[in-house]
Amino acid sequence: MSQAGNFFEDFRVGQELRHAPPRTLTEADATLYAALYGPRFPLHCARTFARKLGLRDSPIDDWLVFHVVFGKSVPDVSLNAVANLGYAGGVFGVPVFPGDTVSARSTVIGLKENSNRKTGVVWVRTVGTNQDGSMVADYTRWVMVRKRDEKSPAPSPQTPDLPAAVPAAQLTVPEKLNLGGYDTGISGEARLWDDFAVGEKIDHADGTTIEEAEHMMATRLYHNTARVHFNQHAEKSGRFGRRIVYGGHIISIARALSFNGLANAFRIAALNAGAHVAPTFAGDTIYAWSEILEKIALPGRADAGALRVRTIAVKDRACSDFPARAGDGYDPAVVLDLDYTILMPRRH
Amino acid sequence: MSQAGNFFEDFRVGQELRHAPPRTLTEADATLYAALYGPRFPLHCARTFARKLGLRDSPIDDWLVFHVVFGKSVPDVSLNAVANLGYAGGVFGVPVFPGDTVSARSTVIGLKENSNRKTGVVWVRTVGTNQDGSMVADYTRWVMVRKRDEKSPAPSPQTPDLPAAVPAAQLTVPEKLNLGGYDTGISGEARLWDDFAVGEKIDHADGTTIEEAEHMMATRLYHNTARVHFNQHAEKSGRFGRRIVYGGHIISIARALSFNGLANAFRIAALNAGAHVAPTFAGDTIYAWSEILEKIALPGRADAGALRVRTIAVKDRACSDFPARAGDGYDPAVVLDLDYTILMPRRH
Amino acid sequence: MSQAGNFFEDFRVGQELRHAPPRTLTEADATLYAALYGPRFPLHCARTFARKLGLRDSPIDDWLVFHVVFGKSVPDVSLNAVANLGYAGGVFGVPVFPGDTVSARSTVIGLKENSNRKTGVVWVRTVGTNQDGSMVADYTRWVMVRKRDEKSPAPSPQTPDLPAAVPAAQLTVPEKLNLGGYDTGISGEARLWDDFAVGEKIDHADGTTIEEAEHMMATRLYHNTARVHFNQHAEKSGRFGRRIVYGGHIISIARALSFNGLANAFRIAALNAGAHVAPTFAGDTIYAWSEILEKIALPGRADAGALRVRTIAVKDRACSDFPARAGDGYDPAVVLDLDYTILMPRRH
Repeated sequence: MSQAGNFFEDFRVGQELRHAPPRTLTEADATLYAALYGPRFPLHCARTFARKLGLRDSPIDDWLVFHVVFGKSVPDVSLNAVANLGYAGGVFGVPVFPGDTVSARSTVIGLKENSNRKTGVVWVRTVGTNQDGSMVADYTRWVMVRKRDEKSPAPSPQTPDLPAAVPAAQLTVPEKLNLGGYDTGISGEARLWDDFAVGEKIDHADGTTIEEAEHMMATRLYHNTARVHFNQHAEKSGRFGRRIVYGGHIISIARALSFNGLANAFRIAALNAGAHVAPTFAGDTIYAWSEILEKIALPGRADAGALRVRTIAVKDRACSDFPARAGDGYDPAVVLDLDYTILMPRRH
Repeated sequence: MSQAGNFFEDFRVGQELRHAPPRTLTEADATLYAALYGPRFPLHCARTFARKLGLRDSPIDDWLVFHVVFGKSVPDVSLNAVANLGYAGGVFGVPVFPGDTVSARSTVIGLKENSNRKTGVVWVRTVGTNQDGSMVADYTRWVMVRKRDEKSPAPSPQTPDLPAAVPAAQLTVPEKLNLGGYDTGISGEARLWDDFAVGEKIDHADGTTIEEAEHMMATRLYHNTARVHFNQHAEKSGRFGRRIVYGGHIISIARALSFNGLANAFRIAALNAGAHVAPTFAGDTIYAWSEILEKIALPGRADAGALRVRTIAVKDRACSDFPARAGDGYDPAVVLDLDYTILMPRRH
Repeated sequence: MSQAGNFFEDFRVGQELRHAPPRTLTEADATLYAALYGPRFPLHCARTFARKLGLRDSPIDDWLVFHVVFGKSVPDVSLNAVANLGYAGGVFGVPVFPGDTVSARSTVIGLKENSNRKTGVVWVRTVGTNQDGSMVADYTRWVMVRKRDEKSPAPSPQTPDLPAAVPAAQLTVPEKLNLGGYDTGISGEARLWDDFAVGEKIDHADGTTIEEAEHMMATRLYHNTARVHFNQHAEKSGRFGRRIVYGGHIISIARALSFNGLANAFRIAALNAGAHVAPTFAGDTIYAWSEILEKIALPGRADAGALRVRTIAVKDRACSDFPARAGDGYDPAVVLDLDYTILMPRRH
């Protein structure tokens, strides 16, 4: 018997899901991630620099950690999902270093059947931990899941209270990280936390075209088994006639593109909210731009501050005019609207 | 002068072929293999789990080891091959750990010219060893090889005796591996050796579409230099008009798919027989199903047993009706018919 | 504000450019490089062999080091380049081992505006160093760069003196490397330095077809951000209607193909000259052949000699007739004409 994944009826509020198997992340994951997206943030690509700042090695890219934690949850949470609807309250904890082993578990925190009776929304809080049990990522997502049987009775609806953004007190700078020695010559970008203004918009300028081999290799690396990403034979008679790119792939492309303008954003501290506005496919070219939403001083830290950033990724059009919402919805090119918080060194 | 590979006339029974060069396998090979196929067997993806079971690290996936040993033999054995006809008597020896260096050598054990005088069958026994000389894989394959010259005299035909399956006494559980601590929560699958019945059929459910970049990267990783996999310019006027996917690529896809149903099959112990029934190409979507052929108790081990399994891989059709042989041949969708033996923990 | 790269007006002779960020190379880079190109030179793929010859580990492939140094220079030197025109005086210094961190800087050594006033040629000398400051690669390249504004005044033209080839005294054999134990059984090729003759031509026989996913992953691995390689949306209205493959990708393919005939060329010692004669695209199949230009004895070394080699790479045609120059230009299939120096063991 093979596993068919959970349907909407299989979830109940309070249910604990232990995701299998754990996954050891190595410098090879970091390298393959670099080849797939092209990020150049110096903490991740120069071990010498990571050590100069007090870390024992280059940490694994935060979004790679997130994708692995997310991927672990797919077989139990979203194998029969129709859509990944949103994120909230995501924080990144201790850095993951090459050799660390990441496990993940989820708790069902909300359920609501849709009026069509064919699907329902499931809210889960997913926590990733390293081999010592320390939290590496902790976030809530909600997802629309198919019912096994339309006639199954609906559970009593229960919707969690979710924060609009992660508060400053919950943002953490990795322990031992000392930004006193941060050298902007290493990143090639002079602008630090002090130099950004709320409302500033940054066109990340470059575009990158997605290939089937790339998004599938990435998605397998994350142990994400959602069928829509891999099976052209089935998808050719699916909603779009082709494989759908994992939404997180776009997050990572946008993060890599954002190096051009946000090169000193050395860490993702929080995922406040996010919407995969439209699907992407192989052949699409992704561009991105960002807006600074908020400048957050970190209690007790003079060397680093946080920026709440909104990054919009679009396909097949440049971003010099900052496409975003349009009318009741979005500019048709927008594929991702992500609200997250980054850390950046401060002038000293 | 470049090397053109051996033709049928170049082989003689008893000939020893030392394959060049050796190849060090690292955790990067394991990661890239994971990105190419998506296996999730916990012994290979969680170092913490491997250590809990008594190993010093996560071993390299058995089929990755097999493909490297096979690949090493290609320049000497099958560069001028028309078809890879079969396997027999394959056993896997000591596990390969990241950092180990694998060498391979082959002995010609049979030769038979075909009646068309254009080709002949060559049987070779290939042995892979690690840097200490310990055997890591040892198998026989036979292959149809072109003659350099139709008029060359035929050698006296010599066909080796080959076992139908590897006997239980030749199956080995890796030394130091103690399955007492095996935790099915880690694999996500509750069923162990005790729970399978001879004759049981398992539809592995998922399908995965092959891309040119993926099969070529995999095949290069194995040092397999067979021209049909890489050269579209030459293959466009070849038998199929396009590059042919290395048969072992399908074995690895099928193994990864088989996690859904056989997640506790922690090791490949033997390759009993196998046929690449039809060629596959980029764009094909591979599905797989398995049948339990035999349950084998292992002498002196209460913690693990062996299952002889037949896995059938097909293309561009689901496997819920278990397609296999049909009439004198195979269902036209079948591309691989593999008879192998896996190890699985027993209840205790 | 994102960075738009330097235009011709931004360069001045004597200008120093420090390229960001440094990049730690690991065994994962070596593995991914192997999967992308398929080189089988034993020093790089068998750690046991590297240690037998006195090195502490398998060094990173020389061209991978070169591409990373080159890639580091792209955002500052050639983001707005129209063409990469040539190389000269390139030497490879200390080997790079897994774990080493490579930095790069360039000096502008020549400038000359083109008569159309739209572009100019910039000569830069680029030096890559490891974390100890030791030189790993040092070469000159010149590149045609767009002007920001046609009306900008032209700088006084300054053209550097460049050597036709790197002289023997500047070629270095890695310290500690002792070729006394070199075993041609490991490479599978019996011919050593002594066996090659000036004027000998070698058809490397094999061909390999380029995929979009492969050249983009390689180019990202090198931190090369030139837009023409990644953005199909922009390039569809560009000069060729599609993404252009990084020229260094062809160098690495040609080097891997040259294993068939030059398997004992254990190191690249110098890059004398090179021209990317024509662009290549995904779907092209690359073949290569080489000519021995010069045999160079190395002062004080009886165990190794150098060969100056010209390797020509072509697309979509075999090389048995050694296509090269034709009339005033090149055979239309030629894409690369590379003049470099390799090291090879001598008989003893």
